[in-house]
Amino acid sequence: MNKAIILAGGQGKRMKADMPKPLFKVLGEPMLEWVISACESAGVSDICVIKGFKGEMIDDYLGGRYTTALQSERLGTGHAVMQGIPFLKNDESGNTLVLCGDAPFIDEATIRDALALHQEQNNAVTVITSELEEPKGYGRIIRTDKGISGIVEEKDATPEQKKIKEVNSGTYWFRTADLIELLGKITNNNAQSEYYLTDTIFLALANGKNAGAYKSPNPDIIKGANDRKELLEFNEYARRQVIDKHLENGVEFTCLDGVIIEREVEIGKDTEILPGTILRGKTKIGARCKIGPNVVIENSTVGDETIVNTAQIYDSEVAEGVNVGPFVHIRPDCHIGKNAKIGDFVEVKNSSVGEKTAIAHLAYIGDSDIGRKVNIGCGTVTVNYDGITKNRCVIGDNSFVGCNTNLIAPVKLGKAVYTAAGTTVTRDIPDYALAIERGVMKINEGYTIRKLKTKQGK
Amino acid sequence: MNKAIILAGGQGKRMKADMPKPLFKVLGEPMLEWVISACESAGVSDICVIKGFKGEMIDDYLGGRYTTALQSERLGTGHAVMQGIPFLKNDESGNTLVLCGDAPFIDEATIRDALALHQEQNNAVTVITSELEEPKGYGRIIRTDKGISGIVEEKDATPEQKKIKEVNSGTYWFRTADLIELLGKITNNNAQSEYYLTDTIFLALANGKNAGAYKSPNPDIIKGANDRKELLEFNEYARRQVIDKHLENGVEFTCLDGVIIEREVEIGKDTEILPGTILRGKTKIGARCKIGPNVVIENSTVGDETIVNTAQIYDSEVAEGVNVGPFVHIRPDCHIGKNAKIGDFVEVKNSSVGEKTAIAHLAYIGDSDIGRKVNIGCGTVTVNYDGITKNRCVIGDNSFVGCNTNLIAPVKLGKAVYTAAGTTVTRDIPDYALAIERGVMKINEGYTIRKLKTKQGK
Amino acid sequence: MNKAIILAGGQGKRMKADMPKPLFKVLGEPMLEWVISACESAGVSDICVIKGFKGEMIDDYLGGRYTTALQSERLGTGHAVMQGIPFLKNDESGNTLVLCGDAPFIDEATIRDALALHQEQNNAVTVITSELEEPKGYGRIIRTDKGISGIVEEKDATPEQKKIKEVNSGTYWFRTADLIELLGKITNNNAQSEYYLTDTIFLALANGKNAGAYKSPNPDIIKGANDRKELLEFNEYARRQVIDKHLENGVEFTCLDGVIIEREVEIGKDTEILPGTILRGKTKIGARCKIGPNVVIENSTVGDETIVNTAQIYDSEVAEGVNVGPFVHIRPDCHIGKNAKIGDFVEVKNSSVGEKTAIAHLAYIGDSDIGRKVNIGCGTVTVNYDGITKNRCVIGDNSFVGCNTNLIAPVKLGKAVYTAAGTTVTRDIPDYALAIERGVMKINEGYTIRKLKTKQGK
Repeated sequence: MNKAIILAGGQGKRMKADMPKPLFKVLGEPMLEWVISACESAGVSDICVIKGFKGEMIDDYLGGRYTTALQSERLGTGHAVMQGIPFLKNDESGNTLVLCGDAPFIDEATIRDALALHQEQNNAVTVITSELEEPKGYGRIIRTDKGISGIVEEKDATPEQKKIKEVNSGTYWFRTADLIELLGKITNNNAQSEYYLTDTIFLALANGKNAGAYKSPNPDIIKGANDRKELLEFNEYARRQVIDKHLENGVEFTCLDGVIIEREVEIGKDTEILPGTILRGKTKIGARCKIGPNVVIENSTVGDETIVNTAQIYDSEVAEGVNVGPFVHIRPDCHIGKNAKIGDFVEVKNSSVGEKTAIAHLAYIGDSDIGRKVNIGCGTVTVNYDGITKNRCVIGDNSFVGCNTNLIAPVKLGKAVYTAAGTTVTRDIPDYALAIERGVMKINEGYTIRKLKTKQGK
Repeated sequence: MNKAIILAGGQGKRMKADMPKPLFKVLGEPMLEWVISACESAGVSDICVIKGFKGEMIDDYLGGRYTTALQSERLGTGHAVMQGIPFLKNDESGNTLVLCGDAPFIDEATIRDALALHQEQNNAVTVITSELEEPKGYGRIIRTDKGISGIVEEKDATPEQKKIKEVNSGTYWFRTADLIELLGKITNNNAQSEYYLTDTIFLALANGKNAGAYKSPNPDIIKGANDRKELLEFNEYARRQVIDKHLENGVEFTCLDGVIIEREVEIGKDTEILPGTILRGKTKIGARCKIGPNVVIENSTVGDETIVNTAQIYDSEVAEGVNVGPFVHIRPDCHIGKNAKIGDFVEVKNSSVGEKTAIAHLAYIGDSDIGRKVNIGCGTVTVNYDGITKNRCVIGDNSFVGCNTNLIAPVKLGKAVYTAAGTTVTRDIPDYALAIERGVMKINEGYTIRKLKTKQGK
Repeated sequence: MNKAIILAGGQGKRMKADMPKPLFKVLGEPMLEWVISACESAGVSDICVIKGFKGEMIDDYLGGRYTTALQSERLGTGHAVMQGIPFLKNDESGNTLVLCGDAPFIDEATIRDALALHQEQNNAVTVITSELEEPKGYGRIIRTDKGISGIVEEKDATPEQKKIKEVNSGTYWFRTADLIELLGKITNNNAQSEYYLTDTIFLALANGKNAGAYKSPNPDIIKGANDRKELLEFNEYARRQVIDKHLENGVEFTCLDGVIIEREVEIGKDTEILPGTILRGKTKIGARCKIGPNVVIENSTVGDETIVNTAQIYDSEVAEGVNVGPFVHIRPDCHIGKNAKIGDFVEVKNSSVGEKTAIAHLAYIGDSDIGRKVNIGCGTVTVNYDGITKNRCVIGDNSFVGCNTNLIAPVKLGKAVYTAAGTTVTRDIPDYALAIERGVMKINEGYTIRKLKTKQGK
């Protein structure tokens, strides 16, 4: 079976943060995850990640999804791959892809096409390359009639070799059995006393094996981020790539400022995305919606023809035809029914809201199940927490909850219940009943005049 | 009289939406509307729009403002214009402008100056052209000593003709009587079996009439949007054009990100516009205001020296010296008086708010008339809806409405009325009176200790 | 002692505002302030600002920090500097830097290095220059073997001189005594009848003194803003400069749209800044924070690992580990304790909030002192204003304030106090007590059915 080794031991000192470089994020995901997903989409799922600096952060991030191996000393890329030998020996029958964990733009087609060439040419090693207009600083590919003769580093290159624009991406396909054999032959007899993976090419040829190079049409596969500025550029690049995909699919964008859409987000045709819209994680937006300005939606589903204006929605489902915002906060585990309205200054949390129900302004609905066609008055609060436990409120269909109502959970309002404004509901209310708690409003005439006199008297 | 025919039958398949292409929006208005307003501002108000794909949407949009004619089959631009013959025959005395409904940047000066040339040269037809640095794909203008001899399409052009940078914009002035005559002579004897409007030039010359070309200095008149990416570019272009106009007028912008100002918006001198400000429709902002960040104002008037910070205002009037925001929602039909304050988490709807009145935080004022120098306490709610009808609240000058007050509409508070915090006002309050509804607050000593013990006892 | 004269008399007609040009802002500060701070950081603190148009605005802005002198007529740059003669005569021993108040990008290194050259060459006058790719419109520097022979204005330059790329920045170092002497020799015998400061170079040489030029490597020192578009470019330039500095320091930015960070702001390593973040004045953000989207923070301190999401914070201190937002307004003079939570639709003003205290939703806390581990229920309002005076609320540690509670200030809640939802607290509550104000909730069965019947009966 084919497998992959991802080198993720780098520190990234110029990032100025104590984190392995491959964990720095591009469009919400660590660069390592971009590399993993390119492997996965090319059908390579058996992956070993070589960790080094702060390796435990790599393990924490992966959460056991893939094998890891620790390179405890920094002795070169060849040495890093050597840490994966036990992983390689599990199955030596196929090919192994070696990639850099901080070069996120490696793509599925490049991986697949390079493998095809690798197999067709019966290579022990196939280096993946691309052409750069400005190749300075990269290892140049020295091609021969039959394949390649090696990779020349910038510092060793002749003036003639420096003109070569085809450079090493740092990604390779190896026949697994050959990789194990070649790793055994690499030495650290060089100025830096390091083990270089590029030596495998020379060694393969010296041992009568084939070595080749696959030139990818996508030069972005070479890009690696070394500092925050480059990371920002990567984000800008990835951001625009994703937006372009949605433009092609018929999503409307009239101004991209502040629009950030992560890779896995789906958006239906003819939906309009306004500035300042941030869509994260596994979010799915329907067709003909209007999203933004200034919206954050994370891991949520939004139905067709829904409007979300200046709101934040997390881990929830909002059905079709819903009108959300402006200034709304929907916290995790909410289900907002079809054609409902969630208006200004409303928080909903861990609650279901039925079809055509309106929570139009200034309310907090937490841990509640609200039926259909309910009207929640302004200032309504579900008192779901008594300082010790959290309890639920249930409100039946067609109910009308008056303004500034407190619903002391656990409490259940039946169908078509009506509560008077200012009532604190402390026990269940049967269907069709009115609940009212109201004192006597007294009028104290001339109060203001007396108050002003007192004030002046001071 | 001069008139115009606008071709608006295109589908725009690459937009991936079931809408005629001229209805796609640039800066909040359909491209068709941009073309119409260029005609109108050049003094051409008698317009016939030729509809085709989803023609009923064109009619819905126009709402009877202009004549429309249906091209039920797609048989070329000449055929499209033929559908306007009844419209042309209403008055054959003047000239007719033919335009593309999806090329929004045609401008008044080009229309006027082309007409002047058209009349001066006594032309039957005058094609409007411009020069493009990259003319590839466009019909080239073949000029002669006396005028033009025709338009050569890309596919028919010789290598020499391909070097011509002057191209057809798709916009023409015709002498109306000549247009009717020439339309009668166009045939579909060509590979596509279509009727081409460009043939009118050849036919005019063949019939001893004059044909000319007016070269506009504005190459943007040629731009037509075919997909969402081009539409986005159009939006960016139009967005910056409008902002540049305001910069010249003395409006201050320090960062344009997320700033979208529609064409008709007016802004006074020395007003500062912060990022994320969206001004739509017939909005008028005064001088020396501070607008933004993250503001949406639609069809509203804002007076001089008013601050609007992170708020949305729709179809309302806000006077001078008002302080709005942050986090405010002013819904349609509000009148906010001079020097009033609308503070955080406040919604106002269909209400008037008097001068120097403060609604500083967390309140909903709907269907109300509030006097001058009123103080609306935090948590105040106008209970304007009883589940069946909506009613109004009236609050007199100098009143002080306590916090968490419910005003059950219809209700009227007189002048200088004072309501105690937590009161539900259920009937009218005379001038200078205090209204108070308050129970007895009981203190239950040691409660928390007993509660904790009970909890531990569990 | 070395001193500086800043020319700040210009009107800036093309800005279309009644304000001296040097008061127009770049990144939140007047251009004049940028010039002043370059002087200050180069060790030149004895400054005289020459004012002219609307000079009183310059005085208002400076607030007595520096000397000013009025140029009441516009008679040239030499004449402007002449107004500073009394200031110069206070101490003629050192050197005087003359700068333009509307060229904000003069930098400390240029000022220092030019002074070093000025002193080393024993110059009477040293003009500061730089090279421009497009020098058109600027005065060209005519260098000789020994130094310079003068400055040639565009209109007087020969074709050969026009090719010179080294231009006058309008900034000069003078030996103070020489400047006084040379100002006495300048005449207005020219077409405009103005006194030109550039004449000092010719006059110095004519009087046997040395004149030199210091060429700065920073061409931005020459930039002067004349209209709103240039001012916008200055803002964009300065904005990116500041962000680049933070990127180098290890601050994470993934999209710069709407991000505006003023010069004095400090940000800790590994803090993430999201789009729409505006940081103003003397703001200090800790390390590992997450700030944005759509945040405004002004003159405030934010501790490490604090989250601020869609909030505005003014003149306050927020400790470490605090979670603020979304939709929060923290007004001046707040102290938010460690690990506190300020949730959605909450305003806090002039208050202290203790460690681990939660104000999770829809509340107004003003003029209050809240202890540690307090839970403030949704809808709680501190009634700090009775229409005449403002008073404070005090809430003890571990208290639990129920939802929709009114706290009528002045009032003091002891430790571990519990208030029932809907209570209006009118007097102090001792430690561990429960306060409850609650009427009797009545249930009126069948109410809704009767109401509907009545409605149908209408």
